Amino acid sequence: MSVVESFTKLGFNDPPAESVPVKSLVFKPKTPKSATPVPIVVVALQSTATPSPLIAQVTSSKDPRLARDDLVRDIFKCESAKDFNLGYLSNATSDFKLLIDSQLEAVEGATILKLTDDLFMTKEILFKFLSEFDAVRQSVDFTQEVKSKDQKKGQQPKKQDSSSAILEDAKLIGITVDKSKDFPGWYQQVLTKGEMLDYYDVSGCYILRPPSYAIWENIQKWFDEKIKGLGVQNAYFPMFVSSRVLEREKDHIEGFAPEVAWVTRAGQSELEEPIAIRPTSETVMYPYYAKWIQSYRDLPLKLNQWNSVVRWEFKHPQPFLRTREFLWQEGHTVFLTKEEAEKEVLQILDFYADIYKELLAVPVVKGRKTEKEKFAGGDYTTTVEGYIPQTGRGIQGATSHHLGQNFSKMFNLTVENPKGPEYPKVFAFQNSWGLSTRTLGVMVMIHSDNKGLVIPPRVAQFQAVVIPVGITKNTTEEQRQQIYDSSKSVESRLKQAGIRAFGDYNDNYTPGWKFSQYELKGIPVRIELGPKDIKENQVTVVRRNDSRKYNVKLDELEKRIPEILNELHNDLYSKAKELYDSHRVLVNEWKEFVPNLNKKNVIIAPWCGVTECEEDIKDSSAKKDDGEEIAVDEKAPSMGAKSLCIPFEQPELKESQKCIKCDRPAINYTMFGRSY
Amino acid sequence: MSVVESFTKLGFNDPPAESVPVKSLVFKPKTPKSATPVPIVVVALQSTATPSPLIAQVTSSKDPRLARDDLVRDIFKCESAKDFNLGYLSNATSDFKLLIDSQLEAVEGATILKLTDDLFMTKEILFKFLSEFDAVRQSVDFTQEVKSKDQKKGQQPKKQDSSSAILEDAKLIGITVDKSKDFPGWYQQVLTKGEMLDYYDVSGCYILRPPSYAIWENIQKWFDEKIKGLGVQNAYFPMFVSSRVLEREKDHIEGFAPEVAWVTRAGQSELEEPIAIRPTSETVMYPYYAKWIQSYRDLPLKLNQWNSVVRWEFKHPQPFLRTREFLWQEGHTVFLTKEEAEKEVLQILDFYADIYKELLAVPVVKGRKTEKEKFAGGDYTTTVEGYIPQTGRGIQGATSHHLGQNFSKMFNLTVENPKGPEYPKVFAFQNSWGLSTRTLGVMVMIHSDNKGLVIPPRVAQFQAVVIPVGITKNTTEEQRQQIYDSSKSVESRLKQAGIRAFGDYNDNYTPGWKFSQYELKGIPVRIELGPKDIKENQVTVVRRNDSRKYNVKLDELEKRIPEILNELHNDLYSKAKELYDSHRVLVNEWKEFVPNLNKKNVIIAPWCGVTECEEDIKDSSAKKDDGEEIAVDEKAPSMGAKSLCIPFEQPELKESQKCIKCDRPAINYTMFGRSY
Repeated sequence: MSVVESFTKLGFNDPPAESVPVKSLVFKPKTPKSATPVPIVVVALQSTATPSPLIAQVTSSKDPRLARDDLVRDIFKCESAKDFNLGYLSNATSDFKLLIDSQLEAVEGATILKLTDDLFMTKEILFKFLSEFDAVRQSVDFTQEVKSKDQKKGQQPKKQDSSSAILEDAKLIGITVDKSKDFPGWYQQVLTKGEMLDYYDVSGCYILRPPSYAIWENIQKWFDEKIKGLGVQNAYFPMFVSSRVLEREKDHIEGFAPEVAWVTRAGQSELEEPIAIRPTSETVMYPYYAKWIQSYRDLPLKLNQWNSVVRWEFKHPQPFLRTREFLWQEGHTVFLTKEEAEKEVLQILDFYADIYKELLAVPVVKGRKTEKEKFAGGDYTTTVEGYIPQTGRGIQGATSHHLGQNFSKMFNLTVENPKGPEYPKVFAFQNSWGLSTRTLGVMVMIHSDNKGLVIPPRVAQFQAVVIPVGITKNTTEEQRQQIYDSSKSVESRLKQAGIRAFGDYNDNYTPGWKFSQYELKGIPVRIELGPKDIKENQVTVVRRNDSRKYNVKLDELEKRIPEILNELHNDLYSKAKELYDSHRVLVNEWKEFVPNLNKKNVIIAPWCGVTECEEDIKDSSAKKDDGEEIAVDEKAPSMGAKSLCIPFEQPELKESQKCIKCDRPAINYTMFGRSY
Repeated sequence: MSVVESFTKLGFNDPPAESVPVKSLVFKPKTPKSATPVPIVVVALQSTATPSPLIAQVTSSKDPRLARDDLVRDIFKCESAKDFNLGYLSNATSDFKLLIDSQLEAVEGATILKLTDDLFMTKEILFKFLSEFDAVRQSVDFTQEVKSKDQKKGQQPKKQDSSSAILEDAKLIGITVDKSKDFPGWYQQVLTKGEMLDYYDVSGCYILRPPSYAIWENIQKWFDEKIKGLGVQNAYFPMFVSSRVLEREKDHIEGFAPEVAWVTRAGQSELEEPIAIRPTSETVMYPYYAKWIQSYRDLPLKLNQWNSVVRWEFKHPQPFLRTREFLWQEGHTVFLTKEEAEKEVLQILDFYADIYKELLAVPVVKGRKTEKEKFAGGDYTTTVEGYIPQTGRGIQGATSHHLGQNFSKMFNLTVENPKGPEYPKVFAFQNSWGLSTRTLGVMVMIHSDNKGLVIPPRVAQFQAVVIPVGITKNTTEEQRQQIYDSSKSVESRLKQAGIRAFGDYNDNYTPGWKFSQYELKGIPVRIELGPKDIKENQVTVVRRNDSRKYNVKLDELEKRIPEILNELHNDLYSKAKELYDSHRVLVNEWKEFVPNLNKKNVIIAPWCGVTECEEDIKDSSAKKDDGEEIAVDEKAPSMGAKSLCIPFEQPELKESQKCIKCDRPAINYTMFGRSY
């Protein structure tokens, strides 16, 4: 491994939400021909000017200039000066000096530095790396003025506020990226600036801050009640699984093996046998199901757990959508008959669809996965599929699997035949089903906008914020007190009515600043109360999603606010549904397939059901051979279309309808699309 | 490592709840002096007879006899025949034959085999081990009769039910171990037979089945509401932490390092840097706290998470009490002032005490930990300490730590001085506090009995079971129907009244069988309804804890059942409190210290507060030098006494009172005891 590769491994490639650009420069001081020059390596904030005279002064060297290719090649074995990065320091064949920008040193907190467009590193790791060189190292305040010779002693250099350059940017509160122009950048900003989530120093892991965790709690509460109504009980199985057990169902483990995280050491002791962290719990649970279930009277067995699982994805991680640890629920149920099991698969799928529609205001299409896309080891997978308008990509929302008898045969999950012991034992029928915090990502992508988050009211941590307004220099103290008292009374009445409300009575901020704040955070409605409202015995209610205003009489508060929240929910849903519906197009001819993908559509097409054809569709739609510009997001400019599902709601197939891609007869309409 | 050690490492030493004893025997057939004997190794259920004539028959060898020391030494390098175990097979210097008992092969499910008193192994691992030998291997049905010579062909051997030997034992439903005689064995049985928990094939990890998880959910619900009332919000931080971050607070990590589990591999890739699984989340969270908290207006910050943590204990694991993964909540709060922080420490401790008293009916003593026993890296630790009467040992119930400014200094968690920017920045004051599923273990140990679990009603998954009784051959169908209808109506009225009730209307089991079942599972009250009850317009209510009976008129159901449940709760608490109070003794003289420990007491003694003295107390109380028999549980026959806490409620110290152990003056009364 080259030194540069080693260095690169200290960092990561995925742009974090916020990073501080840093430059590294090599200077060569003027040196007599006979002497070997001692290069000066400067590591500084991108925004810091590093004037050569100042470098000369602090290093007591003569006339340093940016080094040319030959020096960089001779000393650091780096082909050209423009390719230089700090990794090459490890190659150094001679001494060098290291100057560190004191403004960079002063950057506080868990900062991530941007070294190049695709290399990011925590400040701590970079500094640790730099500290390992046996080089003369100096911390330099580049904001100091260069002293003239007679100034060198006695005078305090004039200091600027050393952190202004970065904080100016870091302190920007609002979203600075346009959702329609840089969707990934926008997504990162709404999540982090809206304080839903923060990036974490283990790549692919994220912090769920209270506003997002509260949404998850609201989903949990709703779903938990629903499944308990079906007789499901919660339990908790260990997060660890031995390789022996994990690998028992071959098809299943093949699907997960590349992403399994292994614990091999505890304290200072190497474990005798590595232990996996569950990527899902089928193989964790079913040996015990086999033990517990002795008679058909022990059936059905319906357990669920709320937990986290780990899938060490090596693809580009994305908050909520693709993360190495994520929260979910996984239900695992066992039935005596296939009929009972299949009935439950659909009941659960309906719950999932309802979570999207009724809680998150997100439209989904219910359907069945193809053989290629189904859960590894199961019989078939049902799914709810969403759609992200900005990228035109489909997204799997949650899945409910019928496992058939595959796992019960593998784990010997049998019961005595109800017909009597003289009949052969019966292998049980099983389901598993899961919904994860991915839900939150879909919700954010669909509803939020350039002002920040838009959180659907039924899941929002806070549904309403009360803000006193209209207080000016001319407001009397009595009037002011009246406005504040009324506001607090509104807040408390709303809470009494079961609405998750709070008030912001902080005098240090203007109402306008507060409006922006709570728009950024996506609070569904803002309730303003000012002198005019007092006079009219009303409050002014402003919806987050479209700034629509309502005047609500005070005595109608408990009735109207819930209504407004419901209308808001319905409007969010309708808008999203309209977009999904208008971008889900029926296509019967292959020549229209890719052009439609490129119009950010998902496609309903007649299909033959053959896996090779599915792969062919993916390959053929990935190529840019149709002459049209491909306008999906930059991470996947030429991504092929996968099958998303075979929708339950089917257009009628014409007799002798051919497959969209091959010559075989179509057996159904299948939904295809580029996808997450 | 010797072959035996390697073999031993395939298994584990801690007796599981259920295991199947297995024997391994070496036989030597009669062989001409000139020939090398081929030994026959038999692996069979302990209960299987392995007659020599049958071995002779199936191996076609002559007159096999149990091998003597010399053969075992020559061929397996094992000193004596009685020391032989299957590990020695790896030493074999010649061929051997391997006979496997087909009854052992037929044992189903995730069975654990008992190879010796302290070596247990899953059947799967043992069989995998055996499969690796290149030996002639035969599966033998030892129940077959030895054929006489003329019988050898044509006749079907008479088969016994091959699983009777083990299942007879495995199918025993009730508790077979006396709580007062074999406390650890009893504890395992009540948990597993009561279906709260099951043992798992990764040592130190356990499965929380629905009845225990439901208790945890009830605790969660209660506590979550309380802390949200204090303004705490829930969040979720990743389970992974980089070594760099984990090791930032030195005292803190020293306390946890030996128990940290490390992920070093994902799929087939070695990770560049090992990543730890959180043992607790101080160092996971605080770098982000430092980032988020910019102004004193961002304080207080109060976050909590419900999660699992991993501490890879190498000590004897015990369900709920010492497990490698456990569920808990961890609260992490930040305040501007020490006063606010310290106030919260005690508020939380009161909640913890209330969980024990009001939900679990368990008395605890509130106090402060000594310097030696406090949380590593914090300022001081407050604790609720329980007591297990059977072992006379104290048990830490939950802890609430004041971290002072230690972590805020380490993680640079500062805010601008509220006095103004010209004053120095202020390091924040922090707390952390946690309560785990250990609560459930304490609850079970204290209340449950030889009939099974006793679950306090406020946390029980089900509080009442309705059982129709008194149906005989002479009962008319009409009467029977009336009893069933009334029972179902009682069940539904109870549910309506918010009582967690269910009915058991299964005709296949007698009421007596059902009574035992639900006693085993600890359902707080059983509600019987028979012909006499119908006549009297009543139900008969029987309390699980003491079989006390009540007649409750049907029209008083909704009023009386909650009252009875409350009385039951109070009686459980009083009984446990009486035991704790009578075994918490004030001791002023060292000579009475150990004798009192040996009477299963915890001790309140005047103490000097010096750590060396505390260590001395532990050492001195561990020795059996007082002539009395030490009667703590077998795992820790001579365990020394630790300080449990410095109780908030202090007896008055006499002036010039000396420390119980040394000559220094006492500074307080401290509670000491053997402990978990």
